[in-house]
Amino acid sequence: MNDAPISPLAPSRFPNALPVPGVEFAVAASGLRYRGRDDLLVCRFCEGAEAAQLLTRSKTPGAPVLFSRAAQAASGGRIRALMVNAGNANALTGPAGEAAADSLAEALAARISCSTDEIRLAATGVIGMPFDPAPVLATLNRLEYASGGWPRAARAIMTTDTFPTGASELAKIDGEPVVITGIAKGSGMIRPDMATMLAFVFTNARLPADVLDTLLRSAADRSFHAITVDGDTSTSDMLLMVATGEAARHAPIERADDPRLDEFRMRLERLMIDLAQQVVRDGEGAQKFVAVTVTGARDEAAARRVAFTIAESPLVKTAIAGGDPNWGRIMAAAGRSGAVGDDFARWRLSIGGVPVVEGGGPRPDYREEEAARHMAGREIAIRLDLGEGAGEATVWTCDLTKRYIEINADYRS
Amino acid sequence: MNDAPISPLAPSRFPNALPVPGVEFAVAASGLRYRGRDDLLVCRFCEGAEAAQLLTRSKTPGAPVLFSRAAQAASGGRIRALMVNAGNANALTGPAGEAAADSLAEALAARISCSTDEIRLAATGVIGMPFDPAPVLATLNRLEYASGGWPRAARAIMTTDTFPTGASELAKIDGEPVVITGIAKGSGMIRPDMATMLAFVFTNARLPADVLDTLLRSAADRSFHAITVDGDTSTSDMLLMVATGEAARHAPIERADDPRLDEFRMRLERLMIDLAQQVVRDGEGAQKFVAVTVTGARDEAAARRVAFTIAESPLVKTAIAGGDPNWGRIMAAAGRSGAVGDDFARWRLSIGGVPVVEGGGPRPDYREEEAARHMAGREIAIRLDLGEGAGEATVWTCDLTKRYIEINADYRS
Repeated sequence: MNDAPISPLAPSRFPNALPVPGVEFAVAASGLRYRGRDDLLVCRFCEGAEAAQLLTRSKTPGAPVLFSRAAQAASGGRIRALMVNAGNANALTGPAGEAAADSLAEALAARISCSTDEIRLAATGVIGMPFDPAPVLATLNRLEYASGGWPRAARAIMTTDTFPTGASELAKIDGEPVVITGIAKGSGMIRPDMATMLAFVFTNARLPADVLDTLLRSAADRSFHAITVDGDTSTSDMLLMVATGEAARHAPIERADDPRLDEFRMRLERLMIDLAQQVVRDGEGAQKFVAVTVTGARDEAAARRVAFTIAESPLVKTAIAGGDPNWGRIMAAAGRSGAVGDDFARWRLSIGGVPVVEGGGPRPDYREEEAARHMAGREIAIRLDLGEGAGEATVWTCDLTKRYIEINADYRS
Repeated sequence: MNDAPISPLAPSRFPNALPVPGVEFAVAASGLRYRGRDDLLVCRFCEGAEAAQLLTRSKTPGAPVLFSRAAQAASGGRIRALMVNAGNANALTGPAGEAAADSLAEALAARISCSTDEIRLAATGVIGMPFDPAPVLATLNRLEYASGGWPRAARAIMTTDTFPTGASELAKIDGEPVVITGIAKGSGMIRPDMATMLAFVFTNARLPADVLDTLLRSAADRSFHAITVDGDTSTSDMLLMVATGEAARHAPIERADDPRLDEFRMRLERLMIDLAQQVVRDGEGAQKFVAVTVTGARDEAAARRVAFTIAESPLVKTAIAGGDPNWGRIMAAAGRSGAVGDDFARWRLSIGGVPVVEGGGPRPDYREEEAARHMAGREIAIRLDLGEGAGEATVWTCDLTKRYIEINADYRS
């Protein structure tokens, strides 16, 4: 299915992803939907592991989302295993889909000898296709767990993604080293109203679920909540963070604002920004990576809204695809965002560091060749200052190309 | 510039558009931006003509929009002429652009011997390009006015449109016949937050500006405010209605809710729906015309929001382009609309009259071939009932094809 060329924005190689004490995983080809490729990832966690999660805000969530939401609440954040299927999202599948999800969780819980509440499920792929759990259940018998092999794990959860996405960081808590490793997948339906696509972040720090929850939400605001590909939100988005506590020598942490977490917080945020940006770099059909920064907005929410309106404008995104520094479309998108004042003569727009607009029109010294040179590249930077306040936000996105249409017009056929 | 093939959704011919007493117009090739085609339309109205208008809500409006807003306020709705340029929107052109707009209005007012407040200006085309009024001013000397030739008038205001858009109706007020004729142009940047693209509606009814204003807003809500192509809103959108009063034999009308206007109101609405749907049929790259109807929403605003979210979802629009009855994407779009309740098991979705979803998943008797047969056609009907209330809305849109990308990635080059 995924014979697409690798995104030109892909990193040169999968990063050196560290094993996380307390995390083992197994990968298999269940044949659920794809043939001849891995499509199942099961992660096993040591006793005592805790989890936090962000799930799609969609009102039509998939069965795995419903299951995981209930499991998190019932377990108080305890977790022993995660199962991820690729190819069939088990969403909009009615009561049969929910029963299928339950059967997966029950089978896995029985093998691991834990409660079903300690299982989390995720799935990605086609929506509304009947989900037959049989091939997955049959596969559970032959799983072989290991603590390494992150690239294979990241590949197993891909759908239309063109490269596996991973990142790893070392941090210190209280002077003691801990590992953070994460994997993710996109690559359409990326608009984080809440959580977004699938991303799994693992650490061997020993952190209670409520602390994890605060850390995860804060880092998500600056990473997965700041990206967009097409403005669509999936039925199946999940961002899960697991802390195993295995081999963690730091003293107990009880509060998310504990200053001993400062470095960990920074490394976690960096890792999640890395994963989120990779997801954008693998946006369907993406040929260019775009950072839209809005400053001088009346507040941060307004800055985000303006930045998202620019980043999601089909006219802006197609102009970028064409290498056209069409600053008029950028201004027009901001103008219709609903989050700006009347006096656009105060706005200053630059493209790739080239000052373009000031005083309500192009600067007298603006030379289009300079902006066009920047737009010909792979990494596009758009900055708009509104001159209204102190609100700032950056949103990352990609261009909108014919390949996006090809992928999405033909996805099921 | 516009060598694109005519939209397959185009009407077979330009309608039989009636002359409107009190309206004369002239068309010319000014050479402002295009070569070898008409790009200037000037309409002259008899003394006593009155106007109402809806303008873009964009906070970066073009100079013609700023001019027309001020002129409408200063004149109390009196109007003697309208000038429309195609090719250069005179938007985001700073003080020089505003001065250029003023110079056009002054020259036209001098020729017609009216106040500049009785002029309205509109423009469409590239944003942010310096607007040199000289070629247009030079053309004013050689205009030849006539009361017929609507297809040529409609062609003169086209940009990436592939066919000229017009409609005409006869109505009776108080037993006396009046004419309504309108022209419009799209064809990207179609998302009516307020007015949308350019549409000009003329009648020889004798109606004061405040009555016109009420009629226009009401009809716009059911026509131009119910269409979307790409979710973008232009800097230059204008919907203008002019009532000349010439040869109108009906008794004076002072209130928009006068029952003697019932037939006129209905005909006006029908004409504006016709124009609006033609705009969608000429949406950039459109291959299919789509009607999205949402019923059972908690109120009309919620129904509109759900319908617009479906109609603007890139994943829904690309699936339609591919002829794929991908109902999961439709449900998922509704699910993220922010205007639906939690119980999607109550929703009923049909595609082309084929019942598809019920009880949270596909109906047991759903056969995809039936929906696929409908999706293979040119006219797509999507109906979603939410079972929550009495809110209803229909939104018209088109599919999203590779041609949209081509047009917009290359528009300026």
